[in-house]
Amino acid sequence: MRRIVGILGGMGPAATVDLFDRIVRATPAQTDQEHLHILIDNNTGIPDRTEAILHHGPDPLPSLQAGIQGLEDQGVELIAIPCNTVHHYLPALQQACSCPILNMITETAQVIRHQYTNIKKVGIMATRGTLAVRLYQDALEATNLQPLIPSAEEIEYLMVAIYGPDGIKAGAPDHLPRSLLLQVGTAMMQRGAEAIILGCTELPLVLTDHDLPIPLVASNQVLAEAIVREAMSESALS
Amino acid sequence: MRRIVGILGGMGPAATVDLFDRIVRATPAQTDQEHLHILIDNNTGIPDRTEAILHHGPDPLPSLQAGIQGLEDQGVELIAIPCNTVHHYLPALQQACSCPILNMITETAQVIRHQYTNIKKVGIMATRGTLAVRLYQDALEATNLQPLIPSAEEIEYLMVAIYGPDGIKAGAPDHLPRSLLLQVGTAMMQRGAEAIILGCTELPLVLTDHDLPIPLVASNQVLAEAIVREAMSESALS
Repeated sequence: MRRIVGILGGMGPAATVDLFDRIVRATPAQTDQEHLHILIDNNTGIPDRTEAILHHGPDPLPSLQAGIQGLEDQGVELIAIPCNTVHHYLPALQQACSCPILNMITETAQVIRHQYTNIKKVGIMATRGTLAVRLYQDALEATNLQPLIPSAEEIEYLMVAIYGPDGIKAGAPDHLPRSLLLQVGTAMMQRGAEAIILGCTELPLVLTDHDLPIPLVASNQVLAEAIVREAMSESALS
Repeated sequence: MRRIVGILGGMGPAATVDLFDRIVRATPAQTDQEHLHILIDNNTGIPDRTEAILHHGPDPLPSLQAGIQGLEDQGVELIAIPCNTVHHYLPALQQACSCPILNMITETAQVIRHQYTNIKKVGIMATRGTLAVRLYQDALEATNLQPLIPSAEEIEYLMVAIYGPDGIKAGAPDHLPRSLLLQVGTAMMQRGAEAIILGCTELPLVLTDHDLPIPLVASNQVLAEAIVREAMSESALS
């Protein structure tokens, strides 16, 4: 029996499309009916997470809780949220939710741990909010991996690529964001990163695994594969 | 004030991803918060529409009505269904639904009427079910356009491209479906089609507007633009 999947999305919308696409592609199915039943709430009204964490912006927690509740009311049995920064709120969200919410951060650290056994030092590309609350630093250290964070200037580059007027959230996933991200990735590689986590769901919209000579691990792809695995699993969630 | 959009999808899932993607791209927005709030029910359990229309397969109407009701319960104010064949059930669905359901078929006929004013004869690529219940034939004739339907052999080609083991619904939108669709399109053009409607939401996954020297009108793109227009419109729906 397959679980009905709930996705609380909209943070941002293009990243939600991307996760949905990756789930459909990762599902072993020949007909419509063999695919997963998925409910998506693409709620674009949720206040920005990085703004809330760093600059006392509007608190996203009430909208997040309402979104989770709406999905539960519709009967979902497994929830995923394609926004890395929002994982700061995951303990509070899970506490108020009776079905499991997948953790994209720890799933990503586990994938690196198990797929690239000789890798030790892992670069993190993420928003300033995700970095400030140490989501990936803590998850990597907990699996005996060594996190490498971007410099202050590199974080600024990442933020411009994600949030700038010619950035990914503005629907212009083109020359500028890509060039900024490749500069940051190359610099992190030169400082010893053996793999880099694309730890913001907007980043894999412009970078692919072949763009640098080291593995680029897309958090959305990890989440998509975890959703398919858990939704099709016979056993209870770990 | 923007309307909350509901999408009853899963017929099939890849076409639902494609519609979602087209909506996000068609929305004038610089930030997450400027995008539309969209609820998607990717319900892959809905029985096949063509099977029901032609071969007394399981009736999809109860699942469709339940899906529409679920979206209404979640507060959507405008509904779209990215499956052409399902539009056979639209009158029954609209009757039981208090918010407007967009009609992809008539929207597509209107777009051709207004964007290509010198065109008269319009080819229809669609499933056997959509063709049998004359969805596009009637809509084109109602706008003084002349429908050109595929031959029996061409319909078989279309069905293999959509439903076959190496077809689009099986997740293999590759060489074979594309080659079959180009053969059908070329033959219809030779019989006088001045434009062709891609009247099954799976078809634009493998064909683009530049694949033939006449316009190929993607019903999903028409629907995406209608959703953005109506969701952002100040006035009541027509």
